Parts: sequence; structure tokens; C-alpha cells
Amino acid sequence: MPEAHADRRARLIAAVAEQDLGALLVTNLLNVRYLCGFTGSNAALLVTPGGAVLATDGRYITQSAQEAPDVERIIERAVMSVLLSKAGTLGLARVGFEAHEMTVEQHTALAAKSPPELVASSRLVERLRAVKDETEIELLHEACAIGDRAFETLLPAITAGRSERQLAIALEDLMRSEGSDGPSFETIVATGPNSAIPHHSPTDREVARGDLVKFDFGALYRGYHADMTRTVVVGVAADWQREIYDVVRRSQQAGVDALAVDALTGDIDTASRSVIDDAGYGDHFTHALGHGVGLEIHEAPTLGSGGSDRLADRMPVTVEPGIYLEGRGGVRIEDTLVVRAGGTELLTKTTKDLLVL
Amino acid sequence: MPEAHADRRARLIAAVAEQDLGALLVTNLLNVRYLCGFTGSNAALLVTPGGAVLATDGRYITQSAQEAPDVERIIERAVMSVLLSKAGTLGLARVGFEAHEMTVEQHTALAAKSPPELVASSRLVERLRAVKDETEIELLHEACAIGDRAFETLLPAITAGRSERQLAIALEDLMRSEGSDGPSFETIVATGPNSAIPHHSPTDREVARGDLVKFDFGALYRGYHADMTRTVVVGVAADWQREIYDVVRRSQQAGVDALAVDALTGDIDTASRSVIDDAGYGDHFTHALGHGVGLEIHEAPTLGSGGSDRLADRMPVTVEPGIYLEGRGGVRIEDTLVVRAGGTELLTKTTKDLLVL
Repeated sequence: MPEAHADRRARLIAAVAEQDLGALLVTNLLNVRYLCGFTGSNAALLVTPGGAVLATDGRYITQSAQEAPDVERIIERAVMSVLLSKAGTLGLARVGFEAHEMTVEQHTALAAKSPPELVASSRLVERLRAVKDETEIELLHEACAIGDRAFETLLPAITAGRSERQLAIALEDLMRSEGSDGPSFETIVATGPNSAIPHHSPTDREVARGDLVKFDFGALYRGYHADMTRTVVVGVAADWQREIYDVVRRSQQAGVDALAVDALTGDIDTASRSVIDDAGYGDHFTHALGHGVGLEIHEAPTLGSGGSDRLADRMPVTVEPGIYLEGRGGVRIEDTLVVRAGGTELLTKTTKDLLVL
Repeated sequence: MPEAHADRRARLIAAVAEQDLGALLVTNLLNVRYLCGFTGSNAALLVTPGGAVLATDGRYITQSAQEAPDVERIIERAVMSVLLSKAGTLGLARVGFEAHEMTVEQHTALAAKSPPELVASSRLVERLRAVKDETEIELLHEACAIGDRAFETLLPAITAGRSERQLAIALEDLMRSEGSDGPSFETIVATGPNSAIPHHSPTDREVARGDLVKFDFGALYRGYHADMTRTVVVGVAADWQREIYDVVRRSQQAGVDALAVDALTGDIDTASRSVIDDAGYGDHFTHALGHGVGLEIHEAPTLGSGGSDRLADRMPVTVEPGIYLEGRGGVRIEDTLVVRAGGTELLTKTTKDLLVL
């Protein structure tokens, strides 16, 4: 992994130099982890053309040496100010900081210590993170495979009388047995009319025969997040359920088919959404189509209406259209996929055929 | 609960008026929850002498009405700017904001919309939160009791051959069965030499006979966090293990004995730390003694070297000294307690005698 981290820092330095900065003071902890491997809860990283310096406190002496062996380390609780001083001793005049992350209080305290001059920059690391390296894609593969295996094991247990909460706990336990470090986000299990709520928290409502049951879940695996939604029917499927399922299924496939290097994010959304619009359900698809996924469950890029970012090789994204009929039920189908120059790669492999359990 | 929330807002308004501010724009989501009960993921609260105004987005129309029935509500995604405008229409000239919470990027965008004038203020709500009301202390009691019950059930399963990860999962599952909403923080299970790492993440390392095994964990219960550390030995305890255990045990008791209304936080740290210093292990106790606990796992006050805050009636704190011998093992013992005028109250009741399992 040190090579991967060094490579990421080299790409960041190129972006930093483009902004006429001598260095970037990285204070977002996920960005610190991404750039050097350190996972502690108090850290900052100064990335300069001459190398990187990690600051963390005394709790992490051993862990920082193990996780981030190829950067200089300073043990000091006041991680930001010690790195700003370090930048001064390195003769750096302008140091970028993460303005979307640093608080006004932190900035005020640091600015009082300048020089170096602190210059607001925004999301330089997040933009790099949108394109994954193969190490990261492997971790996403495993995270998604854990979810596939857990869901397959859960299927026979999705029966009338089980509560949303019971099913959510069972699914999370199965993912953990399969190797997950925990759920990627609060598991959604939404039965019957609750399936019409896009982000429903599991309740004690029990599955009834004829219910749509929507599962939106994922495994966290070594920091990487899987994301998959499947909707099933218990007992017997009504015609209206089959109809909206079929529309969402075709919409989802259209979105997946549109994924390509250099495609506009807004065009992916349109490709998928137009299937739902054409079927007359446009008002019932109330959210964006998808998002990037990696060290965070939601990260760049967003696949939404009017989006003007371009997809790139090795960008993992979700494609997750839905139709929600208030008071009746809803269907969402979601995959995690990787945009590839050689063709899109599917990570979540559970069938998208309608399962009537 | 609306009475508790109204009472908290009244105390806040008194603190806000002392700073010559017309209102406080609260953007920390836990502070929003504390002051009005709303638990959604996008919200801000404007607290004025004339009442409070909650802003949140369309996903939370129903939930905000249920959870925060006694405040005015505005449904708007840009929660900060809509409340700043609202403050303007109320004729407020100076509005405090949470400078330790708002990012530089958010502040730059809001400041462009002034007036009202935005005035940096810091931790007004956090200072109130350090002293709990009885409703909160009851929730902490239950959170800690869940951890006690789960750990007692786990004890027979702490045997040679179990991995750190397996033990962490088992403990979290037991807490969930006992009523927890999830772990308060990432459960620490550290075996053998890993117990010398103060904040160790569970690995596949298996317990070996003669290992120190350190558990640092807690249940989350209706938003409130339990925190307890116990260290056991598996098989047979070596003399050096018994020695450092005894020193930490006496150090922890000295810290607990020093807790009192009006005591200085730094003096509590000293009372505990001097026991470890006197035993010659001072260099191996590398962190602060303890912290407040409530809606966050770490909150005011900090019990650390040189601390000049004063304890008050109804402040829950942890007392958690440790000795860490790199490459060999470590011991930490931690309780959650409530400082009370009538005498300190212990919430984590698992024995602190050395358990050799």
C-alpha cells in the first residue's frame, strides 16, 4: 500500500501546483487516510512536493508508524498548528487548506500564526478520490460480494410476520459473518406502504403477504462502502407491483447502459429517468440517480439531473432509480458499478429479476 | 420532553444575552437535537428570546413536526441561509454562530448575505450540555447498565483461540440484545501486545493463554453514550501484569475519589496520575484521564493535565487511567460516573477486581 499512497500524493501535488500553492494542509480524516493510510481520530497531513508530514497525538505513536511508514511523523496534539509551523520552516509561502472542512475557529487560530499564508482550496483530494486505483476497486469488489452473499442467505427468511427491524439486524449480522466490518450506512428495510418512503428507518412493522419489501444496504470492508438495493414481493405480486418493478428495472438497465468514460453525469440520469417519465411515473422518482462510492458512502460524482461532470475510467458509481407510490409501496433497484474504458464492471451481482418469495 | 427542550433553550438565551447577541444560529446537529428534539441529518436552529425556528428539508416534514412540535419550522434545504434571512426579518442586528462548527466555506457563503452581522461564538451549547438534566442521566444509566449486562454475559466466552474481531462482534451483539441502538464508538478489543495500543482496532489476532485483554466499549441508548474499559487476563497472570493492574486500579480509584463539585479538572487528573508517576510508570500513561459523556462520546469537560474547568453537580465524566508497555501489553480501567453534590454516582458497575479467566 505505501506505493498506492505515494502515487496518490504525487497526483495531489500536481493539482496543488496548478493552484499556485506550495503545499496542502489536509485536515479531513478520510483524506488523510487516503493519502497516507493512517486511520486515527486526530491527524492532519501536510503534502508538499518534497514529501508529506503526518501529525497525530501520543495515542497513535505505534499505530501511525505501522500504518504510515513512508511519511515523516510528528507527535503533537495540536496537529494543524504544528504542521503550519513545519511549512514555515520549509520556507513555503502559500499553503492551501480544506475550506469545506476547516472550521472558522480553527482557521482563526491558525491564521494568527501565519506566515505561511493560508489559502482556501476546496475538494482537491475529493476530486482525486472519485477515480479509484485497483487496490480500492478490489476492496469495493469484496465489500459488494459480502452483501451479495449475505442477501442470498437472508432470502429464505424474508417471510410474513418478520419485522423490518428483525430483518435489518439479521442482514447486518450475516454481513458481519461474511467479513464486513459493519454496515456501510443504516440498513433500510421497508415493507408494504413503507417501501414508498425512499429513506425509511426500520420499524417494528411486520411483513404481510403481498408486500413489496425494499432492502437498501451494504457492507463496510476495510474502509470501503458497498451499496445495493433490491426490492422483492412476499407471497404474490399484484399487477401494479409487477408494472412498476418492470419500469424501474428497464430504467436501471438504461442507466447502466449509458455509463461510459467521458459521458456526462446528467446524461446518465436522463437515460434512466426518461424510461420512468415515458411510463408516466416521472413524478414518483424524486431523487438523483446515483453517486460515487468509496471511503464514503456518498462521494463525487453525483449522477443527477443537469449534472455536468464527466465520468472517467475507474470511477465507481451507483445507479438507483425508483418509483414511490405514497401509501401503497415503492420499488428501487440499485447496483454499484465501476466505469471502465474496457466496459462497465458490475460489483453487486444479486439478480434483478423480480423475486416473489 | 418539550418542557426539557424549552428549559434548555431558556438557559441558552441567558448565555446568548450575556454575549450581547440577539440570537444564536445553531448548526451543530447534536446541539439542534439537544435544544428541540429534532434528529434529522440536515437542520439548523435559530434561538431567539422570542422563540426558536427550526429549518430542515423536505425529507423531514413529518419527522420534524413529530419531534419538535413546540418550535416554528421552515422547510428549506439551505438551512443556514434561510435562518439568517429570518433573523434579518426579525430585526436582529447581531447573530452568534458556532465558530467551532461552521466551516470556512459555509461562513464565506453566509457572510456574503449579511446583515445581520455574524458574530463568532464558541461552545455556548456545549457548556450547557456538560451539566445534564435528570432525563439525560437516566438515559446514561440505562446505556451503562446495558454494557454491564452484556459484558457479564460475554465473560465465559473470553477464552484462548477467540479473535479480537470475534469478541468485539459478540459484545456488540450482546449489547444490541440488551437494548442498545448500536455501539457508542468502535469497540476496542486488544489482546496480548495489542493491549499496549491505547486505541486498538480489533484484528484477527487470537487470544493466547497469558494475554492481557482490554475491552473499551459502550452502548448507545436513545442518543446517549456509555463508556467503560475493563482489562482481564486469560489463563494465568504474570507478576508484571498484576503489578501494572494494581497500579492502574489504585490510580483509577484516586481519580474517582477526587471527583467533587467545584473541583478543578486538572486536579482530578493529578490525583490519578500521581499514583502512576509514583510507581515509576508515568511515561507509560500517555493520554488525558477522562472526559464528559452524553450525546457525544467525548464532550466537555476534559479531565486532563493542567485543566482549569470546575466540575459541577450533574456532570457525567469518565475516569480512565492506563499503563501501556509497548510490545508487552497494557491495562486501562475506566468508569463512567456522575458528579453529584450528594456524592459521586457510579454508572458502570462491572467489578474492577482483576479477573483471571
